[in-house]
Amino acid sequence: MSIKGAVLFAQSGGPTSVINASAYGVITAALGSELVTRVYAAANGIVGALAGRLFDVSAEDRAELALLPGTPSSAFGSCRYKLKPREEDDTDYKKLLGLFRKYDIRYFFYNGGNDSMDTCDKVSRYFESVGYECRVAGVPKTIDNDLVGTDHAPGFGSAAKYIATSVAETALDSRVYDTPAVTVVEAMGRHAGWLAGSASLASLTGAGADLVYLPEVGFDLERFKSDVNAVYSRGGKALIVISEGIRYADGGFVADAPVPSTDGFAHAQLGGAASKLADVLKDALKCKARAIELSLLQRCASHIASQTDVDEAVAVGRFAAEQAFAGKSGFMAAIDRVSDSPYKTALAAKPLSAAANAESKVPRDWINADGNGVTQRFIDYALPLIQGEFAQPKENGLPRFARLKKVLI
Amino acid sequence: MSIKGAVLFAQSGGPTSVINASAYGVITAALGSELVTRVYAAANGIVGALAGRLFDVSAEDRAELALLPGTPSSAFGSCRYKLKPREEDDTDYKKLLGLFRKYDIRYFFYNGGNDSMDTCDKVSRYFESVGYECRVAGVPKTIDNDLVGTDHAPGFGSAAKYIATSVAETALDSRVYDTPAVTVVEAMGRHAGWLAGSASLASLTGAGADLVYLPEVGFDLERFKSDVNAVYSRGGKALIVISEGIRYADGGFVADAPVPSTDGFAHAQLGGAASKLADVLKDALKCKARAIELSLLQRCASHIASQTDVDEAVAVGRFAAEQAFAGKSGFMAAIDRVSDSPYKTALAAKPLSAAANAESKVPRDWINADGNGVTQRFIDYALPLIQGEFAQPKENGLPRFARLKKVLI
Repeated sequence: MSIKGAVLFAQSGGPTSVINASAYGVITAALGSELVTRVYAAANGIVGALAGRLFDVSAEDRAELALLPGTPSSAFGSCRYKLKPREEDDTDYKKLLGLFRKYDIRYFFYNGGNDSMDTCDKVSRYFESVGYECRVAGVPKTIDNDLVGTDHAPGFGSAAKYIATSVAETALDSRVYDTPAVTVVEAMGRHAGWLAGSASLASLTGAGADLVYLPEVGFDLERFKSDVNAVYSRGGKALIVISEGIRYADGGFVADAPVPSTDGFAHAQLGGAASKLADVLKDALKCKARAIELSLLQRCASHIASQTDVDEAVAVGRFAAEQAFAGKSGFMAAIDRVSDSPYKTALAAKPLSAAANAESKVPRDWINADGNGVTQRFIDYALPLIQGEFAQPKENGLPRFARLKKVLI
Repeated sequence: MSIKGAVLFAQSGGPTSVINASAYGVITAALGSELVTRVYAAANGIVGALAGRLFDVSAEDRAELALLPGTPSSAFGSCRYKLKPREEDDTDYKKLLGLFRKYDIRYFFYNGGNDSMDTCDKVSRYFESVGYECRVAGVPKTIDNDLVGTDHAPGFGSAAKYIATSVAETALDSRVYDTPAVTVVEAMGRHAGWLAGSASLASLTGAGADLVYLPEVGFDLERFKSDVNAVYSRGGKALIVISEGIRYADGGFVADAPVPSTDGFAHAQLGGAASKLADVLKDALKCKARAIELSLLQRCASHIASQTDVDEAVAVGRFAAEQAFAGKSGFMAAIDRVSDSPYKTALAAKPLSAAANAESKVPRDWINADGNGVTQRFIDYALPLIQGEFAQPKENGLPRFARLKKVLI
């Protein structure tokens, strides 16, 4: 049953290179629908909605909206905010209901990761419980790719492409001199190793990482040193990629623990796991050791977005909107994989509860037995996601980002 | 007067994204010349030449050589090695003469920065002094852009494009949340601020750095804190770009000095200037502060090379070869700027001695009076160098690097 009313779109959690491609998908579908009276976007996700801070998207220039897919970082701002269960405290829910009623919002799209799907689920159930008719849909995104219910999340493919390309280029650079040197590259991923694992794709260029460590396998410092030494002893070079979230068997993050050194003291150090491990290697191998943190760039480098990822990000946004306009509610737009090669997918509406608060990790048998690399299964999974060169619109040799007016209503 | 014989090409110093584009320029000109009997490349620059380690470039597949412009990092390896004055010790010179005589090398091209131009100059004078006929030419490269005698060095434009693009993308990402945060990005440049300054180009996208610090201006920690605070107090955000080489007025590198903290102790810290300054700001502003080191990526990110830079890198290589084949020796191929807009240049042969061991710094009046940004003059200079999108050849969605056989003779 169709219902006329306004659309509210909001973005949540860590941004990706293509999160605004999904915004573009939702917004263009909404602007093109006869059911939609007005399109709003919340400033900084649910936090903005709670504060009544909404942008009037209908007032935006269409040519600027068309630049959203090449504009990284949540265009309307993001937040990290978890709604309390309504049985505990329904203040936020009542505020949202007031806002939705005031602006006659009948469609709500929340673009985020597993926490956001939880928010979406709670809001959807609350509206249902009070009899307020509103279609609620989750639009997935996360570079971490830890979202359950979808084969992969938009954002991961572009981050993987950035990481694999950067690691391939770094692999060439880091072995340019005739002197011994090791390099430790750190990718994001606190609990899941999808990003670090994607560095393994670099090897397809002929220049890749020698060793890759994921948080799914307990980290053993002695085995690590021995792994690196085996590579290093062959040619005086080693390129290692680690996930920021690698942990010792006792569960402690490598990034948090002091590392032992040969002088017998445990030094407390700044920096993440990569700089700690580079220090360990400098000490153990008596050679130059460099740490490289890929940092924010891996989630905002739209200039090397995967065309596949951009297309899918637009498609899930559009699909979510179309399903909602057709009457569906309480779902997440998901990508099902039909086959790896040729790469084929189908979009599907999955229950929000399936995605909420769960984490998808790299299966153990996608990681090699030694726990220092991935298997072909991982490559077959990840490779299709980095295909295609997105041509980021340029002006003056620099990215031409969408320039939105962002008029608050 | 023309002379027939073999060509020796070698690469030295820190690589760039386009150093192999110059290799391509020299090599294709050499392979196409009737004067050239054979083309060799030294493994790891002058060090390989001294050890008699030469690759036979004539044996390479032409289609692979054509991929050199999209392949970062010195394809034949690099070194950091300074020849002693021959009056002090002529061992190296005699070794080189032996090698050149053995393979009848009559053309020597050395691709590097100011130290390499010094090497080139010394070798050229030595050959002249002993009456060995050999044309010696320097081919400039350096991301640091500190080479005297040329308007700019190939490699700088691509590094500047990478930095400006990354800073623009990071600027959007770093202000996505509704919480206070400052970000300090560190660019390379130990003595000259060309790279940090090029971050200022990002502002043309509408999303750039708030403050930029170059090593040409003495760094003052109190003024820095006050600069950042002025930006931060307006919206709870600040993006700062610094050169790794910023120094205090007493000449000490910020990266080397312990930073004072409010607990009264001077903490010795790991990491470069950016992580030190991020710590200072965390302390002073009581907010989240993140340090991002652009690290090796700024000199090897061929995937976002400037087409202008690639074209110029090929052109200076080819020009050096053509001038040498026409009889010229003891020169560096240089780029003279004719005009900024429209951007016009001319190639010229400059005496090696002019480039050797000198450093070009950012003129004081290209930096603003407060020493925390650049002036329009800097923008006018740098902007033409980042124009044009180089289409790095791809395979499987990843860079398709040149795969050379590198057969040692």
